[in-house]
Amino acid sequence: MNVTDRAYALELDKNDPLAHFKAQFVVADPNICYLDGNSLGRMPVATVGAITEFLTQEWASELVTGWGHWIDEAQPTGDLLGASCLGAGPGQVLVCDTTSVNFYQLCLAAIHARPGRKTIITDAANFPTDRYILDGIAKQFGLKLVIIDNEDPAIATNERITTDVLAPYLSDDVALVTLEVIQYRSGARSDIKAITDQVRAVGGLVVWDASHAVGAIEMDLDANGADLCVGCTYKYGNSGPGAPAWLYVSKRIQGELQVPIQGWFAQEAQFEMGPVFEKASGIRGFQIATPPIMGMRSVKTAFTMIANAGIADIAKKSAVGTQMMIDLYDAWLAPLGIELHTPRNPAERGGHVSLVHPDAAQICVALRKISNVIPDFRAPNSIRLAISPLPTSYVEVWDGFDRLRDLVASGRYKQIQEGGSRVT
Amino acid sequence: MNVTDRAYALELDKNDPLAHFKAQFVVADPNICYLDGNSLGRMPVATVGAITEFLTQEWASELVTGWGHWIDEAQPTGDLLGASCLGAGPGQVLVCDTTSVNFYQLCLAAIHARPGRKTIITDAANFPTDRYILDGIAKQFGLKLVIIDNEDPAIATNERITTDVLAPYLSDDVALVTLEVIQYRSGARSDIKAITDQVRAVGGLVVWDASHAVGAIEMDLDANGADLCVGCTYKYGNSGPGAPAWLYVSKRIQGELQVPIQGWFAQEAQFEMGPVFEKASGIRGFQIATPPIMGMRSVKTAFTMIANAGIADIAKKSAVGTQMMIDLYDAWLAPLGIELHTPRNPAERGGHVSLVHPDAAQICVALRKISNVIPDFRAPNSIRLAISPLPTSYVEVWDGFDRLRDLVASGRYKQIQEGGSRVT
Repeated sequence: MNVTDRAYALELDKNDPLAHFKAQFVVADPNICYLDGNSLGRMPVATVGAITEFLTQEWASELVTGWGHWIDEAQPTGDLLGASCLGAGPGQVLVCDTTSVNFYQLCLAAIHARPGRKTIITDAANFPTDRYILDGIAKQFGLKLVIIDNEDPAIATNERITTDVLAPYLSDDVALVTLEVIQYRSGARSDIKAITDQVRAVGGLVVWDASHAVGAIEMDLDANGADLCVGCTYKYGNSGPGAPAWLYVSKRIQGELQVPIQGWFAQEAQFEMGPVFEKASGIRGFQIATPPIMGMRSVKTAFTMIANAGIADIAKKSAVGTQMMIDLYDAWLAPLGIELHTPRNPAERGGHVSLVHPDAAQICVALRKISNVIPDFRAPNSIRLAISPLPTSYVEVWDGFDRLRDLVASGRYKQIQEGGSRVT
Repeated sequence: MNVTDRAYALELDKNDPLAHFKAQFVVADPNICYLDGNSLGRMPVATVGAITEFLTQEWASELVTGWGHWIDEAQPTGDLLGASCLGAGPGQVLVCDTTSVNFYQLCLAAIHARPGRKTIITDAANFPTDRYILDGIAKQFGLKLVIIDNEDPAIATNERITTDVLAPYLSDDVALVTLEVIQYRSGARSDIKAITDQVRAVGGLVVWDASHAVGAIEMDLDANGADLCVGCTYKYGNSGPGAPAWLYVSKRIQGELQVPIQGWFAQEAQFEMGPVFEKASGIRGFQIATPPIMGMRSVKTAFTMIANAGIADIAKKSAVGTQMMIDLYDAWLAPLGIELHTPRNPAERGGHVSLVHPDAAQICVALRKISNVIPDFRAPNSIRLAISPLPTSYVEVWDGFDRLRDLVASGRYKQIQEGGSRVT
């Protein structure tokens, strides 16, 4: 069967072991093609019940005594997330704060653990919050921030950082290398093990940002020897807008790291409230403050679904779904002058692809307004389209691409004015 | 009428302009005396509806397009909180992150704004997370952390920091002084204006932690010339366990401060995602990352009630309620060997009082288990008891004190074993 036949996608759905999960999400408009689950995931049906039950049966009823069981909730929720998505054994993951705060914490902990070294390395295509935070760290501590210009195709293909790309920048002055597991724009995936080993060989540490990877691919952080990783929960994690993020610190190095914000949740004898800070052993030594319990329950609900589905099948659907996108791109979109900026090797990508066109911003607005397809636009010229393995069907992706083809081929997107929102 | 007559409290309730607010909270057990609203406030009835509506009508329905109106929600929610509780004009408050993270951000921003100065001052009775975070900052930047020993009655009365207490520690080496508006243990209140002026006179900045004050007293931050303040929302703010916290930065100094965690929400042209960090003008320049929208709605619901009630009446009820506690203490508890560690001048306290007894930990457990009174224990020997002006009636406080008297006078609390939870 040809990928350009809609039956192709229907057949994939028929054989999809994850197909039944779609019914576990609220789908308000069945005609929408929601291809932006890599930005904000859909809401699980179970979330409303979990939150309402927490509010009425716990907060309102237990009042302050609820802290007896809420207090350490960042840890079991972290263990659930680690086991379901990260390949992380227990005691290494906390669900807490935002990706940005966790990123700052682990980057600076890594830098302080390599005293005397003055170089931080990241890449130009990295997500802005990571780049801006590193800039702030470098300014505060007089460090040198080296930015690999992987937006230059002469330096990297599809922004992808490989050991070959990274090698020329490494030296014994490097304290920290920090990269996205999957690039937010191009969708290119780096090799966690190869790069971690390479940086470790020069004595540096790597902080991985897995925001665009978690819930879409297998990361095997323990098996790959990762030291430090952060990410969010509201993309493929389906935990809701601004839900708490997470951090991973390998047991191997928990003892040697000290985060810069040493809050009271990291205090060994927390409720003695004594005069001297003594870092708690284990992963609690990396927690700052009171966990947001409503958010925790949203994360728990969504990642329980991921655990039930199994990350291996999820990763497989990401690969098959993005392959279908690329095949449809070749058949329909390449002839229209659209470029593909995502690797064709499924091991080198995740759950989204990036299509580049000079009118990308206008096309994205038109997709929403005319075609009932939700993509997102990323400056300067990318259309991002994703398959989120649990809530998205193959035919939803197929229909979205069909509508995109029609919109661009007909030129109808040019009727639409851009913008109106500061969010893209 | 005598305070030891229950009718005294009933009369106060009868004349209480805020009495009708109690019905706007969920009260699962009408027999409980919940005197711990200074630790975790009760749940407003409206919260469940607000959260459920957000989940079903916004997240599930609007999906990623919801960010068009969610994106800046930290600001109007901050304005609401600032207007209702802080005496803060618009554009100076964000609802975001945790108190600990906000405290770190503003303290370090203040320190960086006073280059060359090497001294930080705080007090021994300050909440532990503040002390531990300052210790971490001092270690990272080679600063001197001076801790006023206000647990020594020869230095301060009821831990209260006054200009006289502070004066000997000030010099032109002081970058930062940071204090609680209301001491978490003793309940003593400092004079915001006097201390801010005093520290400003030597060229330093003050960061106030108002966690135990917000929603209980009038702070008039603008009128008092405060520069920087942080606090939580889950105590007198009734926004739920781990609800997002807030920060206040006076417009006067927003331009000269740079927070250490410079995340993408502080970027002027946020969605251009450009290579160079350029701090946004205004209060957004102090925001790190994606706001937790569920938590925002919980804060909005609870602080709308506070706005409707009016902080002047709330503050008055705090003063009258704590006065009744002190009068009952004098009549009933002082003769039992319990000490009062809270100022008798209502202008020098907030919504809670601190009673000290060698068996405080055991008494607190017994109050919960035998008497259906919820206090909290603070190491080493404090029983904290609060009136939270919106959900607490005067008679609830009166009954709680009556039960406390009975428990201690009878010695029945000695039947109870302490603890079992790591939380107190």
